[in-house]
Amino acid sequence: MVGAVIVKDGKIIGKGYHQYFGGKHAEINAIEDAKSKGYSPEGATMYVTLEPCSHWGKQPPCADRIIEEGISRVVVAMKDPNPMVNGKGIEKLEKAGIDVKVGVLEEDARKLNEVFLKYITTKIPFVAIKLALTLDGFIATRSFSSKWITGEKARRKVQELRRKYMGIMVGANTILKDDPRLTCRIEGCSEKVKVILDRHGLTANGNFRVFKKGKVIVFTESEKEWRNAEVIRETNPEKILKILGEKGIDSILIEGGKIACQFLPFADKLHLFYGNKLFGKGISPFECLKVNDVNDAFKLEFLKFESFGDSFYVEAMPCSQG
Amino acid sequence: MVGAVIVKDGKIIGKGYHQYFGGKHAEINAIEDAKSKGYSPEGATMYVTLEPCSHWGKQPPCADRIIEEGISRVVVAMKDPNPMVNGKGIEKLEKAGIDVKVGVLEEDARKLNEVFLKYITTKIPFVAIKLALTLDGFIATRSFSSKWITGEKARRKVQELRRKYMGIMVGANTILKDDPRLTCRIEGCSEKVKVILDRHGLTANGNFRVFKKGKVIVFTESEKEWRNAEVIRETNPEKILKILGEKGIDSILIEGGKIACQFLPFADKLHLFYGNKLFGKGISPFECLKVNDVNDAFKLEFLKFESFGDSFYVEAMPCSQG
Repeated sequence: MVGAVIVKDGKIIGKGYHQYFGGKHAEINAIEDAKSKGYSPEGATMYVTLEPCSHWGKQPPCADRIIEEGISRVVVAMKDPNPMVNGKGIEKLEKAGIDVKVGVLEEDARKLNEVFLKYITTKIPFVAIKLALTLDGFIATRSFSSKWITGEKARRKVQELRRKYMGIMVGANTILKDDPRLTCRIEGCSEKVKVILDRHGLTANGNFRVFKKGKVIVFTESEKEWRNAEVIRETNPEKILKILGEKGIDSILIEGGKIACQFLPFADKLHLFYGNKLFGKGISPFECLKVNDVNDAFKLEFLKFESFGDSFYVEAMPCSQG
Repeated sequence: MVGAVIVKDGKIIGKGYHQYFGGKHAEINAIEDAKSKGYSPEGATMYVTLEPCSHWGKQPPCADRIIEEGISRVVVAMKDPNPMVNGKGIEKLEKAGIDVKVGVLEEDARKLNEVFLKYITTKIPFVAIKLALTLDGFIATRSFSSKWITGEKARRKVQELRRKYMGIMVGANTILKDDPRLTCRIEGCSEKVKVILDRHGLTANGNFRVFKKGKVIVFTESEKEWRNAEVIRETNPEKILKILGEKGIDSILIEGGKIACQFLPFADKLHLFYGNKLFGKGISPFECLKVNDVNDAFKLEFLKFESFGDSFYVEAMPCSQG
């Protein structure tokens, strides 16, 4: 998620952003925007959310083009941690005599690109957990009734969330009980990689909607076979994430069920939706935690609250240990 | 909670409110405020949040004074449901030729006086439940560790809440475990009636802080005796509330513990504080509910959200059944 703005004589003469993977970079789009309107970027300042690249990827290096166009000053929100760049773009600009300032609104830029930043530096997908809970913390009744804990607006927000992640992961029980499509049904949302953790092969040979269309990966210990799915004999959460990362999946949204707790130690973010209901007893999402003393609780930092009338949303991230 | 404002020629000439039980009413304070500043209320309009009284209570009837001062128009947010008034004040004003308008911002006035309105019409205290929960809905770990689930700011807000209620109720286990004082330790907060539901007499003869000072009422089935407490042999929640109402206690805040669930069917409001923690397993507050199907869940309506950094607050009220 990169954006660039070109300013000359106190006026914005060009704007651009990186519209899709493999497409022109933000800097190039901003330069072409300026030129198409009859402005010359010469002597202008470019503001950009990520360090301009210095290497040939799917596109020529932006740093070269910036130099070529005679832009005289570049303000960069943050250095690109991609090992292919990582300061080399800034160095190239400076060597060409361009005045470069780095680290303006860096915190905001980091949030904007949290998925990319995690993946490019670790090769492990950004892991988010999404749950719908009652006010007393249950994701289903004792008889596994859960439709619907939250209201319609909250469920629409879940569709919005899916847009952000490349993959969606659920456990076998969710497939058996809800038969979800695991698709993102809003405009402009790309097809998701659907990941199923099915230790005992409960979904093999089943006629479930998730297998009807698109890419499905099943992680299992079972020797059964699946149609329309890639099957990987692995069920260790850490190893699953590593494999997904190797496959180029930069982000995964874990939806509901008991698998959330197994992936909690690796979670980068929690999306919690609370409905206006009490169950008293039911299925707790994080039962695998064994907290006896309040000081040993799993701690989170709140990032965002949103209210939807009959539901509310809490965004949080695990606190770093210690 | 009654306030009055007197307006003449588009200018506020007097303001007053009912400052304490037994004190002068809002209308009188507003009239005296205007006069003390050299204004005459004659021909003015009075805006008041509750119908002016028509009877002699601890103070002379306000309606008489309004007539006497020559106020020509009175705008009333809501009729006083107190059977002693209930339209008689309005009638009196109208009979004296005053232009009276009733029902302006009535919903707001009702919220402001929810405690009074419930108590005056039912003689049952306004019942509020306060809980501190983890994000996964526990009020303590399995080993009853609960200090502290929420942060300091949230706990200060609890002190603020106590101000609003005449009594505070807890179960015997809370006394045994936490030895709370059940006082309101902020400025201008009056002494609370402390109510303990102690079915088996576990707190009898115990050296607990709650018995050190002020009024304590113990509801029990046990034949034991308590020092410094009024003991009532009753443990049915509905009957307890009726007895408290008969004693003139207009509002009660039920704090934590398992007794919350017993009083849930009678609750007018829930104050829920969530800390930034997960326990996985622990003590659930509403275990006495037996919800098997999501459609049979106990439903609430959200009234307010507030964020305190490491905790957040949700105010809700039970939805009317059906």
